[in-house]
Formats: sequence, structure tokens, C-alpha cells
Amino acid sequence: ASGAMAQPSLILTENGVDAIQATKEHPPLFAKAYRQAETRFARSIRDGLIVPVPTDPGGGYTHERHKENYKIIHDAGLLYQFTGEQKYLDHAEAYLLAYADMYTDLPLHPERKNQAPGKLFWQSLNEAVWLVYSIQGYDAIRDDLSPQSRERIETDLLRPMAEFLSTESPETFRKIHNHGTWAAAAVGMTGYALGDPELVERSLMGLDKDGTSGFLAQLDQLFSPDGYYTEGPYYQRYALMPFVLFGQAIENNEPDRKIFEYRDGILLKAITSTVQQSYGGKFFPINDAIREKGLDTIELVYGVAAAYSLTGDKGLLSIAEQQGVTVLTGDGLNVATSVANGDAEPFSYETMILSDGPDGNQGGLAILRMGKGDDAQTVVAKHTSQGMGHGHFDKLALILYDGGQEILTDYGAARFLNVPSKDGGRYLPENTSWAKQTVAHNTVVVNETTHFDGDWERAQESWPTIRFFETSDKVNIVSSTISDAYPDTDLTRTSLQISADDTRAPLLVDVFDVAAPKRSTIDLPFYFSGQLTDTDLPLQRYNARQTALGDKNGYQHLWTEAVADTPDGHSLFTWLNKDRFYTYHSLTSDAGEARIVRIGANDPNFNLRSQQGIMIRLKDSKTARFISVFEPHGTYDPAQEFTVESESQITSLQSTHKNRASLIRIEFSGGEALVIGLAEEPSDKKHTLTHDGRTYSWTGFYKIFRE
Amino acid sequence: ASGAMAQPSLILTENGVDAIQATKEHPPLFAKAYRQAETRFARSIRDGLIVPVPTDPGGGYTHERHKENYKIIHDAGLLYQFTGEQKYLDHAEAYLLAYADMYTDLPLHPERKNQAPGKLFWQSLNEAVWLVYSIQGYDAIRDDLSPQSRERIETDLLRPMAEFLSTESPETFRKIHNHGTWAAAAVGMTGYALGDPELVERSLMGLDKDGTSGFLAQLDQLFSPDGYYTEGPYYQRYALMPFVLFGQAIENNEPDRKIFEYRDGILLKAITSTVQQSYGGKFFPINDAIREKGLDTIELVYGVAAAYSLTGDKGLLSIAEQQGVTVLTGDGLNVATSVANGDAEPFSYETMILSDGPDGNQGGLAILRMGKGDDAQTVVAKHTSQGMGHGHFDKLALILYDGGQEILTDYGAARFLNVPSKDGGRYLPENTSWAKQTVAHNTVVVNETTHFDGDWERAQESWPTIRFFETSDKVNIVSSTISDAYPDTDLTRTSLQISADDTRAPLLVDVFDVAAPKRSTIDLPFYFSGQLTDTDLPLQRYNARQTALGDKNGYQHLWTEAVADTPDGHSLFTWLNKDRFYTYHSLTSDAGEARIVRIGANDPNFNLRSQQGIMIRLKDSKTARFISVFEPHGTYDPAQEFTVESESQITSLQSTHKNRASLIRIEFSGGEALVIGLAEEPSDKKHTLTHDGRTYSWTGFYKIFRE
Ligand SMILES: [Zn+2]
Ligand SMILES: [Zn+2]
Repeated sequence: ASGAMAQPSLILTENGVDAIQATKEHPPLFAKAYRQAETRFARSIRDGLIVPVPTDPGGGYTHERHKENYKIIHDAGLLYQFTGEQKYLDHAEAYLLAYADMYTDLPLHPERKNQAPGKLFWQSLNEAVWLVYSIQGYDAIRDDLSPQSRERIETDLLRPMAEFLSTESPETFRKIHNHGTWAAAAVGMTGYALGDPELVERSLMGLDKDGTSGFLAQLDQLFSPDGYYTEGPYYQRYALMPFVLFGQAIENNEPDRKIFEYRDGILLKAITSTVQQSYGGKFFPINDAIREKGLDTIELVYGVAAAYSLTGDKGLLSIAEQQGVTVLTGDGLNVATSVANGDAEPFSYETMILSDGPDGNQGGLAILRMGKGDDAQTVVAKHTSQGMGHGHFDKLALILYDGGQEILTDYGAARFLNVPSKDGGRYLPENTSWAKQTVAHNTVVVNETTHFDGDWERAQESWPTIRFFETSDKVNIVSSTISDAYPDTDLTRTSLQISADDTRAPLLVDVFDVAAPKRSTIDLPFYFSGQLTDTDLPLQRYNARQTALGDKNGYQHLWTEAVADTPDGHSLFTWLNKDRFYTYHSLTSDAGEARIVRIGANDPNFNLRSQQGIMIRLKDSKTARFISVFEPHGTYDPAQEFTVESESQITSLQSTHKNRASLIRIEFSGGEALVIGLAEEPSDKKHTLTHDGRTYSWTGFYKIFRE
Repeated sequence: ASGAMAQPSLILTENGVDAIQATKEHPPLFAKAYRQAETRFARSIRDGLIVPVPTDPGGGYTHERHKENYKIIHDAGLLYQFTGEQKYLDHAEAYLLAYADMYTDLPLHPERKNQAPGKLFWQSLNEAVWLVYSIQGYDAIRDDLSPQSRERIETDLLRPMAEFLSTESPETFRKIHNHGTWAAAAVGMTGYALGDPELVERSLMGLDKDGTSGFLAQLDQLFSPDGYYTEGPYYQRYALMPFVLFGQAIENNEPDRKIFEYRDGILLKAITSTVQQSYGGKFFPINDAIREKGLDTIELVYGVAAAYSLTGDKGLLSIAEQQGVTVLTGDGLNVATSVANGDAEPFSYETMILSDGPDGNQGGLAILRMGKGDDAQTVVAKHTSQGMGHGHFDKLALILYDGGQEILTDYGAARFLNVPSKDGGRYLPENTSWAKQTVAHNTVVVNETTHFDGDWERAQESWPTIRFFETSDKVNIVSSTISDAYPDTDLTRTSLQISADDTRAPLLVDVFDVAAPKRSTIDLPFYFSGQLTDTDLPLQRYNARQTALGDKNGYQHLWTEAVADTPDGHSLFTWLNKDRFYTYHSLTSDAGEARIVRIGANDPNFNLRSQQGIMIRLKDSKTARFISVFEPHGTYDPAQEFTVESESQITSLQSTHKNRASLIRIEFSGGEALVIGLAEEPSDKKHTLTHDGRTYSWTGFYKIFRE
């Protein structure tokens, strides 16, 4: 940048500006962001200044207008840096002065709720976001403003707002929570822009500057040591934004703090673990997640740009390619240039367990992966803690992705974001009555009740214990147990992803053990996406009349479409998803029932998506084992009239249990077999079992025998 | 080709070979086809000759094996031409000799049905296909075979097969039907390959050489003058193959016949009209169609290569790009080279009416299009004749595509191609009980019965009369009437696609008039894809118990999910499909009922797809009018948390009817309005009507007033 120009130092820096100005032709990802900023600016110039008195709550006119305005101030400031054109400075200045005129006299927002009200917005969270964006625009023009303008904007707007968000909202500012992070970022970035170390110190070390709150405390406590955010990836990507932005501002202003090395590089881990928690570009839809959210959200656009600049990991470039855009900073230019140079490599999606809890001892999210690229099979085993108020009662729940599709599904949230006719776009009543309930998930339900009786604060007090996790070329395995989702009841789930044969997709073998204090009804539902093509049960179909399965705890939302007894504990269901078949083989310790269910009963406003599930029920069991094998097979290509292996290639599924160990034998149509030896407890003991006249010995938790 | 080599002259020609050999590096589309042929050949060499005695019906082992073999013979012959390598000739020769050994003594196939048995296959249709492929392989090696081999293959295999397909199967050979076309092509191509003009003459002019049957008669009678095939695009693409192949063989051997100019260029029209009958790469799923079939089927790969060579229409290249492969001929190389040169242009999808019937006077398929590219809105108005045994009872049915998606849907066929567990992959019972029934379609049902009482031979005797068709920038309109789908009942449907405003997607305004001989129950269902987000009716929802809507004619397959009265004839429903909202505004001449229905009742084997529909019912009307307006609006982008105009922008829908003419007034939230003047009959009469104090005058069938 020319010496005469303002020198920004938050996310966009002088070096970044120099690089951007030196680039003759912007690479596509950067050019797109640039065009978007120019378009926003041009529209704003056409519309003129619009700074309404705050009256509307979230989604309303004044709310949306003030959100748009912080983007205008931000973009105009950056465009001024890139071009030096006065019109950009003038517009950002005019907006900031208009806010300065209004802000100091503003009362609390008329639509405020009990907690954490704002002035421009109904909640202070939005106010913090406003400042995080606007301060970047201000930082970009500050040095070139008249002293009078600078004085007015800082005295009447920025400082009051920073005080409002910190000293005047101590409860929020002290909170170890996403809202606190936004406030800290807003105040700290304002400190850097205004050259006020006290504001920076307050934001880093907390209101009392003792480190019990503030940004560093947030970094210590909000993420697990693996960078997992307890509410899950949907909220993680939202939480990420202030961490990434303020982290970069710290790095650019006080590199000696080595903020990106803090807590063993937790900021970077938080970014990359968010990417790891995705399939086909979408986040795993656990907890109150909007299913459509994925890697292309703006939070992760910032995150990827920051992470690439720090690590040079070319795998991140392929994520940037998917995002299709980058940010208007030096980091963004760097990403865009590298992508344009063809440097992108596939992101390294890995098998891993992301520990949960600040100390990493509150369970974790296991991600098992096998195969390459879009077709890789991915198993998500949710052995995490509750995840606070947006958490679902889905202890040990399971998701299966295969062939680019979600095969065993998680419902996500019942919500249509920003659609006024759907309760104003908020979480719908069915989010509580269905989506959060245990029966809405691929996990065990005892006596038709929800884990922890649906009390999230109680749920927050306990979590699964991860007993075992191992990954190799041919087998990925995770096993966890929880004892208080139901009183005095042990739930133990062991999931194995096994390469049965190099020519086939991996198998998912899932063993769910239940030990209840007394005889109970035990259900294990699996919700699947696809069209049923086969079963070996003589289903009694509800042909001309259907009723809801129950009247509470989510059961009221399920239609029973068909039912059958499973006298020998065996059953098989095949469905077609896109161009592949999936067979679910079930083997239970007792005889029971199988039901085909469909979501949609007691849904007066059609708020739920219609989807099928298969529910296996043991009606009167004290201890129960559900062995479930999921087998992808065959190809369905009606366009080329090509269908092969539409029927399961597994001819038998058998199990033997003795001496606290089991054998599970899976035989294939070619005669070959997989035998899984599985101990009750992970330990170094030796186990010997006989099945069908053959003896199998192994030491440790498990072994796979191939015959 | 070197003078010493065999000189093929069917689809692959000497010129083609020369061009292919002269190409240093094959362009991608050609290279892919080449690799596929090499792979097939390599696999066959590895497996050795496999020529089993025919025992299995369609889908069984010997059936599939003999199908594979004709592809091997075909590909090996072509590869011999390209490379001159002896191994290819040897393998094709060995296969042909093995068949020669077996063929003359073969009895009729053990699994034959009553009609048209084959020897290698259960039906002679497959036998004809076998010969069409194998003769091309033979043609490619013939000149380089020993006289002994040539003699054996021709005397013991090719000639007997050609006789079997013609003189020994006179009924099939004389049939004006797809099966007859395949037989004619097989016999005629054999005639060219063997230098036997008698076989050619027989195939062109029929068994009696009088032109009452044979290829030319097929060309005269199977397509309408616009190239529409009466069974619809799914069967059209299948029927196309022998026409294209034999057509090219005729052109290459007897160019003086000018076969591609025959009947005003009917062959070319048949190819391009198939492409026109598609959206998003898939064929319109009318009649017994497998919905997945689209432009990438092999029949159309041949068709596009042939058509491009004849016309040089660069729009066809974009279809070839979508196909991702071409054929191993000079035409194929031509296409692949042009695509590699970047010559492809968007295919010109047009608004048109494709007349039905050999003389073009049996109704037609209207295709209304507005907008560009993948987002173009397309309305398919099925004003065709029945389309024989695979036709559905869906007179005047309607499909709407918008934004790349099928919005108002056609169920297609109830069939899972080649899936043994689904009735062997055949049409399922629900194809008859549901998919063919009138109520399964977006058209009127009177007294819960199916058009023509579900008798296709009766249905075959009549068809709609196209009353009006016009296309312009701002309006596309089609209007048709049929009087005998129900006894003494006039059904008249007028569909208008209107550009309301340059910034919005077009509106579909649909007016369905019914005049019955006595008071009747009149239903108009619309099946839609998406999630309901809004309605203005106080729906009574069937919350905990659902029953089937009826017990026959398809009604037994519908669950009633909710019902409401429409006392003033108005109702509104909004749904979300991907990233766009759609509002259906209904205005009926009488008060009635609206039902939300879902497909899936009385479906014991889960053969049906679950899908919702909205059914408007007038319970006791003699004459009825249904005005339906379909309005795409807004954007839903939960990834970017961006939702706009999720609610309808139409604030009122009103109608006035007087003096055999109507006004339909659609008012938008901005205050602007569209008023459609519509006469009962298309004529040049002048009409004057008053609505809300304003007078509207127009001459002719219709006029759009913009206020
Ligand atoms: Zn959930
Ligand atoms: Zn149909």
C-alpha cells in the first residue's frame, strides 16, 4: 500500500493489501468475493444510507437492515484499501457517522428478551457481530479520516459499543460460551484498531483480567483437546468465526503471543476438525443441526483461508474449491492463487476419534472411514456428551454414509431457517417432540422412554466411556458404554467397519448390548434412505388403515406401516439408494418383532419429513444383544439397464456367546466367511471359543478371522 | 484402411476406419468407447468362449450371456478394423463359428411364450438384436476370413437366422411395431453384409415386397410427421435404435435411396424429438417409463452421432458431452473430435407441439418452455393418444419442471428394472393398480373412475383435439379437449405459461373445464415434490390414524393425510423444493374439498414410492372449472442463512365468466396484476367483459392484460 494510505491491521493487513494490489488479474475465487463486495457497495450507493431506529426482532426489517449495514461498512473499507478510491471511504464514513449519531442515546432494544439484550439488535450477540465486521471497515479507513470524524466515530460509537459489550454486559462477557467469544472478539479487535491495549487485555483475560473469562479461557474450555466443540459441527462452524477472526487479529498485531500455538494449536484443530466432521460437503447433522449446512458456509471460508496460510496444507485448497469463494484478505488471495495454480490436493479425511469435553474425557465423536474420495464409507458413532441445550438424547447413536449418500440417517433439526410460515423460522415444536427424542435416532430405546427422561441438564452430567478405538487398513472399531442414560442400565455399543474383500464396499458390523435392571421393552430403530426392495419376513402390512405407534416420547410421530415376528431373532431388509443396494441383517439375542415405521404421524402442520425406518423390538428382555450388519452391494443402473447383485451376498449370520466373549460369523455366497471374535471387555486376556466345530483363539478385545 | 483389409460397410465404413486410423490421439469421448471395447475384449479372452445352450428366460444366465456375446463379436470386429491385429479377428471368428455349430439344430427356446419365440433367446426380439450387433462384427472381418469359415458362418448361422427372423416368423416380420423394425434391420443389414439384395429388398418392402410391411412401412406408420412415437419418449428411445442403425446402413450402401430424406426427413426428426422430450437429461416419464432413463442411453448415443454427421448441428454436441461417450464409427469420431475442439453449443430446447399418430391428427405432446439453461421452466401437456398397451389413462395430464427439478410430477412406471426381488424386474402389479390409473396423474377424474374404464383398446380409438397452440416470448399456450374419456363428458384443458415479470420465474396458469352429463364427483389431483410449508386452509389432519381414500381405480393406494373444505373455492398451498418455493393457488367454480394425500396405501410389498399430492374435489357438480396457478418464488439457502420471498407474492386470484368468455385476474403484492381474457372457443370473435369496474376487450381465443 502507498505510504499515504491507511494501514489496516486486523484481518486484512498492509502486506495483504500490497499483494492484492500487485495482482494484475484476480484469481477466480478472489475475484468472486471482490465482485460480491462491489455489488453490495453499488446497491448501497443506489439505495442511500438506511439506518432505521431499531424496532424489529430477529428476521424483521430493522434487524436485517442493520446486519446488511455492517457488511456494507466492512466491504466499503476493504474496497477503499484495494483501490484508494474516495467513494468507498466516503460511504463507510457516512454510515459510521450515522450510527455515531444514533448510538449513544439508544435505549435497550424494545424486543429484548430477559437475557443479554442489545441496542441495535434484540440480543447483544448480534451487536457483537456488528462490531466485529464494522471495526474491520473502520480499521481500513481510520488513518485517512479527518480527526473530527475519527473522534466522533470512536467516542460516540465504537468505544460505547465496546463498553456496552463488556463492562455493561458483564454476565455475557464472562460467559464461557459462543456469545462470550463474539463479545471478546468485538472488544479485542476494537482495541487493536483504536490502539487501546486495555480493551485488548480485557478481551483476552476477561473483565477482571484474571483469566477466568475472556478469549483465552474460551480457548481453554470451549473446545476439547482435539478441537471438538461440544454442541457438534453445526454449532462448531458458527462458534468458529470469532475465534478465527480475533485469532488472526492477535497474530497480526502481537505475533509474540503465538496465539495459533496456544494450547497445542487448538485454533487450527478447531478449524480442521470441523472439516473432518463432514461428508459430501455437508456437516454430520447431529444435535439441532440444519442438514443443508456444509463446508461452504462463510465461517469456514474464513477458517480455511486462515488455516491454509498457517499450514500450507494443500488439502485445504480442495475445500476452498468446493466453497467457490474466498475472503478479501491476503490469506484469501493466497488461497485463490494456489487454487488457480492447480495446487489443490484432496483433503485428507481420516478415521479418528474427536474427544469431547475441555479435558477430552467426556466421550467423543468417532469417525470411521474406509475407501477413497466421494465414495468412501463413513461411520459416525456419536459417543459424545449431551452437548448442552441443543444436544439430542441420542447416546451412542450411529450414522452411516456410503457411495456419497447418507444411508443410515440422522434427522437433524425440525426447523426451516427463516421461513416465516414455519413458526418464524425458529425451531419447531416437533424439534422437541420428535427430533431431540431418543427414538428419532439410530440407538436403543428402553421402555419407550427418552434418555435421561429428556432432561438435558441431567444429561449434561454424564457421558459415554470410550472403551476401545483402533484403526487399520482393514478394520476400524470403536466401542463405548454408558450406564445412566437409563437408571441402572448399561448400554454398550461396538461398531466395526470391516473390509471384507477388496472388491466390495466395507461392511458395518454393529453390536449393541443392553443390560437392564428388569425385563423391559427394548427397541433399536434404524432410519434409512432408499426404497425397500426385499425382506425375508412375512410382513403384516397395514394396508388400508394405519395408526401411530405410541403417544409420547417421539413414538407418537411414527406410523407403523408393517410388522412381523422374528421368531429366531433373524431378519433381513434390503433397500435401494440411488445406484446401490443395502442389506441390513439383524440378529437379536431373543425373539422379537420387526416394524417398518414412517415419520409423519401427529404432525398437524406437516413440519416433519417423511422417512422410513426399521425398528427391531425385544418385548420382554433383561439383557439383550442386537447384532446388525449393513452390507452395501450391487449396482442399479436403469439408464444402462444394468443391475447386478441386487440381492444380499451374505448367506448366513450366526453368533456364539460364551465365557464373556462372542463369535460372529458372516458367510458369503462364494463360501468365504468373516468371523469376528469379540470379548466383553477390552483387555489383554486370551479367549478361545468354538463355533460349528472350529476353534477360534485370540488375545485382546477383538480379532477378525477370514475363512 | 489398407487395401488388403476387409472393408466394412454397415455403420462403420471404410472412410470411418481411415479417419480413425489417421487420428494420432483419440479425443476423449471416442477414447472412452475404445477403452470399453478393449476391456470387454480382454475380459472375454480371459474367460474364453462361452456359448451355452439356451435355457434361461430374460434376465437369466444364458440370456445375459448371449447378450454379452453379440457385444464381443461386434467390438472385436471393430477393433480388428482399427488395428489390423489378428487376435481380434480370431476371437470374433471363433465366436461366430461356435454359434454356427449350434444354431441350425437349435429348437425354439424352452422358455418361449406364445408369441414370437426365438432360438437363442426366449423371444425373437432379442434374436434380432443379436443379429444387428453380430452382423456388424462379421462385416468387419468377412473379407479376411478363409472361404471355409465364411461359408460356414453364412450358411449355418447368418442366413438361417435371417430366414428365421423373416420367412419363418412372418407375423412378427409383418408387424408395424418396434419388434418388426428390429427384424427388418437385422435382415437388411445381413443382406448388405452378405451382398444379398433380396434380403435387403425383403427388409425394406416387407415379406411380400409390396410395401405393406417392412422398414419403409415402419417409417411411414410408427412415427407422427413430427417424429413422435406414440408410446412416448421412454419407448421412443428404444425404438430408435434399429431405425438409426439400419438407416445408416442403407445410407452407406445405397445413398441413392436418400433414406434420411424419406418422409420429409422423418429419421432425423425421430432422433431430435427424443432429445426435445427431456428435462435435466431425463426423458419425460410419461406412460410406462422408467424415470431414470435419459439422454445417456446407448440408443441415443448412436442417434446423436448419426444426427450430428447429417446436420452438423452443434447443439447435438452438448448432448454428446452429457452422454460422455460416443460410438466406434466415423460418425463417433466426428462427434468426439468436434466436442474436443470445443465446438459444442447448448442444444436448442424449444416450445413445440409434437403431433401424435401416423398422420399427425391424433392429438399431440405440447412442450412449453420459458427461460434459459438448466433453470428453464418446462410444462409438458400430454394431449396425446393412448399410446397402446404401455399407455397410461392420463388424458390431458400435466407435468411442470422448474429450476432444474420436476415440480408437478408424473409417477412413471412401478417397476425396478432387473431387480429379481421385485417380481423379477418386470412391471409390478401396482403398475396397473396405480401407475396407469387416471388418479395417479395430474388430470381430472370423474366419479373415481379411470378414463375409458381402464380399457386401453377402447382408449386407443380416440384422442384429444388440439384446439389452440401458440408460442411467444411472454406467453405459451395450449388448449385441447376430449369428449369420450368419460361417456358424454367434455374435458377441456388450457394451460398458459406466462412471463409475469422479467425478474421472476414464469407462472403456469391452468384452466380445466369439465362438462358432465349429470352431477358427479370431480377430482383434480396434483402430485408435487417438496415439503409443504404453508396453506391458507384450516386442515383437519389425520394425526394418529389414517385410512385409504378408496378401494379401487388407484384410490386404494392413497392415504388421506388431511382434509379441509374450500367454501369459497379458494385454496393455497406452498411447498419448498430444493432452493425454491412453489405456491399452488386453486380457484374452483364450486365449493369443494381439498385433501393432502400420500401414495403408499394397499402396497403390501412396498413397491410404490411415497409421495404427496393435493387433490381438489368438487362433490356434486355437472359443469366445473378448476383454475390452478403455479407460482415459483423466493430462495431458500440455509447454508448461507438466506431466505427470501418464502411466501406467495400473489395476493389475489379472481375470475369472472360471462358470454362464453372469462377473465382471470392475478394480483401481486406490489399491486401490479395480470388479467387473462380467455374465450370458451378459439375463434376470431370479439369479447368484452367487465371485472371490478374495468372493461376488457379482445379478439380471438385469449389476451393477457398487464396492469
Ligand atoms: Zn438428532
Ligand atoms: Zn403415467
